[in-house]
Amino acid sequence: MPADPTITGFTVRDLRWPTSLDNIGSDPMNLAGENAFGYLQFQTDGEHIGTGWSFSNGQGNDVLCAAIRSLAPRYVGRKLSSLTANMAETQRKCVSGQVRFMSPERGVLQLACCAVLNALWDLWAKVEGKPLWRLVSDFTPEEFVRCIDFRYITDEITPEQALEMLRKQAKTKHERLDLATSNKAVPAYNTSIGWLGLSDDQVREGLKKAVTQGFKHFKIKGAQGVEADRKRLSLVREIVGPSAVLMVDVNQIWDVDEAITYMKNFSDLGLWFIEEPTSPDDVLGHAKIREALKPYNIGVATGEHVNNRVMFKQLLQANALDAVQLDACRLCSVNEILSVLLLAAKFNVPVVPHSGGAGMVELCSHISTIDFVCVSGKESILEYTDHLHEAFVAPAKITDNGYHVSPTVPGYSCDVKEAEFEKFEASAGSFWQAEQGRR
Amino acid sequence: MPADPTITGFTVRDLRWPTSLDNIGSDPMNLAGENAFGYLQFQTDGEHIGTGWSFSNGQGNDVLCAAIRSLAPRYVGRKLSSLTANMAETQRKCVSGQVRFMSPERGVLQLACCAVLNALWDLWAKVEGKPLWRLVSDFTPEEFVRCIDFRYITDEITPEQALEMLRKQAKTKHERLDLATSNKAVPAYNTSIGWLGLSDDQVREGLKKAVTQGFKHFKIKGAQGVEADRKRLSLVREIVGPSAVLMVDVNQIWDVDEAITYMKNFSDLGLWFIEEPTSPDDVLGHAKIREALKPYNIGVATGEHVNNRVMFKQLLQANALDAVQLDACRLCSVNEILSVLLLAAKFNVPVVPHSGGAGMVELCSHISTIDFVCVSGKESILEYTDHLHEAFVAPAKITDNGYHVSPTVPGYSCDVKEAEFEKFEASAGSFWQAEQGRR
Repeated sequence: MPADPTITGFTVRDLRWPTSLDNIGSDPMNLAGENAFGYLQFQTDGEHIGTGWSFSNGQGNDVLCAAIRSLAPRYVGRKLSSLTANMAETQRKCVSGQVRFMSPERGVLQLACCAVLNALWDLWAKVEGKPLWRLVSDFTPEEFVRCIDFRYITDEITPEQALEMLRKQAKTKHERLDLATSNKAVPAYNTSIGWLGLSDDQVREGLKKAVTQGFKHFKIKGAQGVEADRKRLSLVREIVGPSAVLMVDVNQIWDVDEAITYMKNFSDLGLWFIEEPTSPDDVLGHAKIREALKPYNIGVATGEHVNNRVMFKQLLQANALDAVQLDACRLCSVNEILSVLLLAAKFNVPVVPHSGGAGMVELCSHISTIDFVCVSGKESILEYTDHLHEAFVAPAKITDNGYHVSPTVPGYSCDVKEAEFEKFEASAGSFWQAEQGRR
Repeated sequence: MPADPTITGFTVRDLRWPTSLDNIGSDPMNLAGENAFGYLQFQTDGEHIGTGWSFSNGQGNDVLCAAIRSLAPRYVGRKLSSLTANMAETQRKCVSGQVRFMSPERGVLQLACCAVLNALWDLWAKVEGKPLWRLVSDFTPEEFVRCIDFRYITDEITPEQALEMLRKQAKTKHERLDLATSNKAVPAYNTSIGWLGLSDDQVREGLKKAVTQGFKHFKIKGAQGVEADRKRLSLVREIVGPSAVLMVDVNQIWDVDEAITYMKNFSDLGLWFIEEPTSPDDVLGHAKIREALKPYNIGVATGEHVNNRVMFKQLLQANALDAVQLDACRLCSVNEILSVLLLAAKFNVPVVPHSGGAGMVELCSHISTIDFVCVSGKESILEYTDHLHEAFVAPAKITDNGYHVSPTVPGYSCDVKEAEFEKFEASAGSFWQAEQGRR
């Protein structure tokens, strides 16, 4: 029997990597960002610490930390089992109360709730001695459904319908569990060659390496002008060959009609999708863009800034998406992610999570594996960026034939090595201290 | 010539009134809230201070304050005119940068951006010696449009189309200015009798007073069960008479189909609208509810938690609303409010701002007057709640025939009396100090 630890305290730390120095993460909307975590640890009276974080892009990470600090005290003194027995209720309570009025279920507080719940999931998986994806994959359909708050989505999916979907997949689950444990569940796609700040030579070099690693899907940042985008896409196509899948990401830079006009220029390039063509809040706008670009063989994707299940529900209802790019921290932790996996499966749209930042591949390799094993039953392609994995205790890896390695270490792969804090904690870390001296 | 002050510094204060003690603001989702402000003051080298705040419901107000503190330093050292010369750009910059990634234009950071811009608008109006509504009403159409960031809404309204709408209204603006200065612009509706925590006797007493004050519109909190709601609505109807307009507010408590099923029970009661039947993010859900309730003579309204112009654009595109209930702090200050006024006018849907919290009537009496004078040209009904006006330097008032008094004091009516901070600033104020002792 696993122990049932009690949470005895917490720490919140502000961790920021100076990624802008290398143009990592540069895109049309975010020219220079510092990958950053609001990093929460729940101490317990047992042998494990529960770790959870949410991601920001640098400035304002202190606000995220303040939000986590505002929520975390509620959990001190609680036995883990009292929180995991009904995870849906635990999520509902986390987003409720007086703080709900400030969002609700959006923005900084949603990120903070996610960090808190991530830490609970991490602790739960560690106590059970399983990587998170395996903890969830071993759930019965009833246990799976018990983790989901169905508020606001029952017009599309009820607990009963979810049970039916999960039971159907459960019959063949063991086959997919075998594939997952042998790292044949989650094909990787490559964004590392796509950042705006990279030179042609850097892109060429990165692509050659990526091809030998077995990648077959590549994404670049666009919206640099039709000719410039075409030049870069041609460079990519030249190296990766005609059968590889290409995508373009513009990070919300356009208005609706602007997106349509611009993208019509690329009908000959065989693009899977244009990612984030406009505001992530614009369900009807994405639907209009997708409809308009269909004759041009270009799909539409979004999700990294889609804040909750209600927005994804509508994007699916409006036929606005070719891929559901959920973000593991934007949504309210595993709980809400499970509901979006179910919604996507109901509408038969693939889930292709956003992982373009530090630690995101670490989390999403769990999520995509769960999708494959329990929900969609289909190979679930997942973004792979190759920066900062060395910072993690259980780093994400890819195989030499372009698959993600299914995590094996118990927990949710959230733990960051202590040495990173010595260097990069804001503002006491040695890097930031020296940076102040340089300014 | 007015002076052009330079911002020399700022203070951010956490102000919380213990409104939950009197059940003020109690509703199905928020049973006990403390009306609270993240309160920003920009000091200047001139005679004026720019004051702006955003609203929260108590817990987490420190997070809002942290977010305001994160943004405010950008403005220190800036001349006011360098910020007001292009207010659209000032808004765009405020919501951009690394912090954008955490939302964008939603939640706590949106509230914080609003507080910052409110303070700039307040300072601008004070320097010009005009109440804010008059400052804006005296704009030319070109000056008005220059305050709006049209990003993400040009598929519905372009700057050129906005100019055309404003020029058309400008021809008769002087007539409406006369009505505004004689307090005949903004009829009030009453929510103070509607809070859940009130007894039948309190409601009866409040209604009698409200009728003598000239109110003709009344709103109650519902979702207490069909019979309980019917009983309270009948009590209201009995006192206010058959010609008064009734509304019900349920603060997002239902799922989509649940809202439809429940509200079909009230077709005989002549309700103008059901407010916030479900998640404020659910554009398609509101559209479905409105369509389903049309045969039952019940409309749909929402807006107090609608975070930005992109969401309002869609609610209007989807024919989901009978009233646009924008909130003066949820949107990104006057800038974004102006864009929503234009969108509502284009779709011919009345703007009925949310004012159910401390200070909101103070701000919204400016907004509704602007709508009447410059944009819709129609009488713009505005919620009136009668608590906490005494806390403000320039309190909102109503006439004895049920109209809001158009503000006359220069500025945006944001200033709170210093005595309030002595009592209610968290956690140093005398009330909260004593409260700690009581616990």
